[in-house]
Amino acid sequence: MSDAQTLTRKADFPGMMTANGKPWHYLDTAATAQKPQAVIDAMSNALGRDYATVHRGVYSRSAEMTLAYEAARRRTAGFIGARSENEIVFVRGATEGINLVAQSWGGQNLSAGDRIMLSQLEHHSNIVPWQMVAQRTGAEIDVCPLTEDGLIDLDAMEQMLTPQHKIVALAHVSNVLGSILAAKRAASLAHAVGAKLLLDGCQAAPRMRLNMQELGCDFYVLSAHKLYGPTGIGVLWAREEILDAMPPWQGGGAMIDRVTFEKTTYAPPPQRFEAGTPMITEAVALHAAIDYVDALGMEDLFAHESALAAKLQAELRSINSIRLFGPEKTAGIVSFEMEGVHPHDLGTILDEENVAIRAGHHCAQPLMDHLGVPATARASFGLYSDESDIDALLRGIERTKRIFG
Amino acid sequence: MSDAQTLTRKADFPGMMTANGKPWHYLDTAATAQKPQAVIDAMSNALGRDYATVHRGVYSRSAEMTLAYEAARRRTAGFIGARSENEIVFVRGATEGINLVAQSWGGQNLSAGDRIMLSQLEHHSNIVPWQMVAQRTGAEIDVCPLTEDGLIDLDAMEQMLTPQHKIVALAHVSNVLGSILAAKRAASLAHAVGAKLLLDGCQAAPRMRLNMQELGCDFYVLSAHKLYGPTGIGVLWAREEILDAMPPWQGGGAMIDRVTFEKTTYAPPPQRFEAGTPMITEAVALHAAIDYVDALGMEDLFAHESALAAKLQAELRSINSIRLFGPEKTAGIVSFEMEGVHPHDLGTILDEENVAIRAGHHCAQPLMDHLGVPATARASFGLYSDESDIDALLRGIERTKRIFG
Repeated sequence: MSDAQTLTRKADFPGMMTANGKPWHYLDTAATAQKPQAVIDAMSNALGRDYATVHRGVYSRSAEMTLAYEAARRRTAGFIGARSENEIVFVRGATEGINLVAQSWGGQNLSAGDRIMLSQLEHHSNIVPWQMVAQRTGAEIDVCPLTEDGLIDLDAMEQMLTPQHKIVALAHVSNVLGSILAAKRAASLAHAVGAKLLLDGCQAAPRMRLNMQELGCDFYVLSAHKLYGPTGIGVLWAREEILDAMPPWQGGGAMIDRVTFEKTTYAPPPQRFEAGTPMITEAVALHAAIDYVDALGMEDLFAHESALAAKLQAELRSINSIRLFGPEKTAGIVSFEMEGVHPHDLGTILDEENVAIRAGHHCAQPLMDHLGVPATARASFGLYSDESDIDALLRGIERTKRIFG
Repeated sequence: MSDAQTLTRKADFPGMMTANGKPWHYLDTAATAQKPQAVIDAMSNALGRDYATVHRGVYSRSAEMTLAYEAARRRTAGFIGARSENEIVFVRGATEGINLVAQSWGGQNLSAGDRIMLSQLEHHSNIVPWQMVAQRTGAEIDVCPLTEDGLIDLDAMEQMLTPQHKIVALAHVSNVLGSILAAKRAASLAHAVGAKLLLDGCQAAPRMRLNMQELGCDFYVLSAHKLYGPTGIGVLWAREEILDAMPPWQGGGAMIDRVTFEKTTYAPPPQRFEAGTPMITEAVALHAAIDYVDALGMEDLFAHESALAAKLQAELRSINSIRLFGPEKTAGIVSFEMEGVHPHDLGTILDEENVAIRAGHHCAQPLMDHLGVPATARASFGLYSDESDIDALLRGIERTKRIFG
């Protein structure tokens, strides 16, 4: 643990202090990550001395900003092991990425009689877009159950999948339980019946080394703000030949080839899917975020957070009134409940101790229904987390026990 | 002009210098505006010491950020004269706002036999989304012609409108010509046949005092990055009763009431239309941008830029080789061409003089077809512009004449 504890400097993160200058024990990184100063500086420079539009200006600053924007795309492609930067579509976030796939790809490829395979642990953002396209196309949704310890049950999925299934959409890492999907097997199972596989990588991208070519999936989405980058930008990756065949979803400037009132033709991907002035400064700041985490090493980051999660689980198991959810091996996310204490009350008391956890349904109500609880308490680690955060959380839990005892 | 010239301090804008510290004559504000330091600082603080997610956290920093995010919505509502902050939907930009209306409202309210009224001068973002929904629903598009001096010809529109027209979508201010729409008359004409009116306010919002209740339109969209705010965020305003009746467009977290695999119910507007983690820091920075321009006074800003545009037009008219496009009265935007010189070449030569103009079709190819040119040169002013920018542009044009002469 001592190596892991020095993975990075909390001082790199101006958000990791309370307003009165005390350490903030931020255990809500699964909701959104704090930003290193390098990301904030990249944003400031892009909004300030370097600011210009992209893809259009005939002056040099716009040409330079276009290079920076496209360099961010190339860096993202390299970071996640895409074959080409043309496979990277900048979207508002993972949610928009899934909506884009559901409405563009799904609108074209789904019809009555077709089936969509999801799982019981999906985030609402990987449920509702499919419900909406199902309603529009007449396709139907199946729900893969979970194993007892909270993994997506791929044995069950193997039995359930049929040639009618056109797409399988699963969380790579559960935002509630931290469960890690066996992605390659999921891809094999999906492909065996001719279905595509979409992975929701919101929680995996900040914690695991990704390689699109090795994973075997067809679509992958992630949100920059969970990857220590800015809000307002995310990534949709898809195989180039799949993107090529997809119709545009939003119309506007920059995504066209030629517009007349008689007939409009569209640009090739990724531009076809980036209508309007893009998230210019956000892309530049995402580039800085990727540089930051990549320099630390995604493998070390995973080991660091997994070790912290394992330690927290061990500590919580020794407390009688605590019930843990999810598998032993988690990617830095630990969900639990405390007997007789609503998670919100726990969260509020912890807040007084400068400990921030998340309490609620975590945008995963079907999983809450499955667990038989309205909400859980969730502690999630980031690259800046260390044992002092666990100690503070445990102190807060002890205090809560005294208050409610 | 002397008052107007001191409308603001260029020093407030770190982008208004070249890399080697010289004044940059930025005449491309219609493409995107430079940002005052106050906006950059708001963004830095939101990404740094104040950073947290919104609408979810049980800890105080998240509650504070939620207040800041909703305060930005309220400030936006007040700035554009909305009746309520519930009429303000934060979107990625104006392009997404129009796509949202076209797909959600249009998908519900348009069918074969219905008609959509656009104009010849629309930006692609106010053409292509309507073409896409027309293709999906079977509705058809009509194109209102322009008057000789480049205004949308409302007399012609009055003749063309029928009860089959369900929506009229027009630029409040043309991004190429600077023409200002008689918005109230357009609203009356649309409403007289039972159609809704959408205004594309990208160029109007940074230049005119807006009041949604007085304008009489039903939908209004704007982009923050053109209003001296950040990229990645814009505003869709719509009457509350219209938003209430619209189905969701993107599914995900935050836009739901309750999710089960059997049935999902949706939140009321504006949340219904804000799926996923929103553009948190962008909203805070937009608030700062509105504070900045509002303190200067939108009326003064309009007078300032109109006066600069009038002066530039007068100067250009005295040059034989220059052809001006558009009306005499423009909202700070002047399009022209120079005989024998492609606008791109002019733009490149001007760039060497630290003058930035836009050269191209300005995402308005149907207007270019109407004008009979492939491209124009466009100078557009912002609140930081002054006569020195005009002088620099004229010097650059003189030099271009010598080069091409």
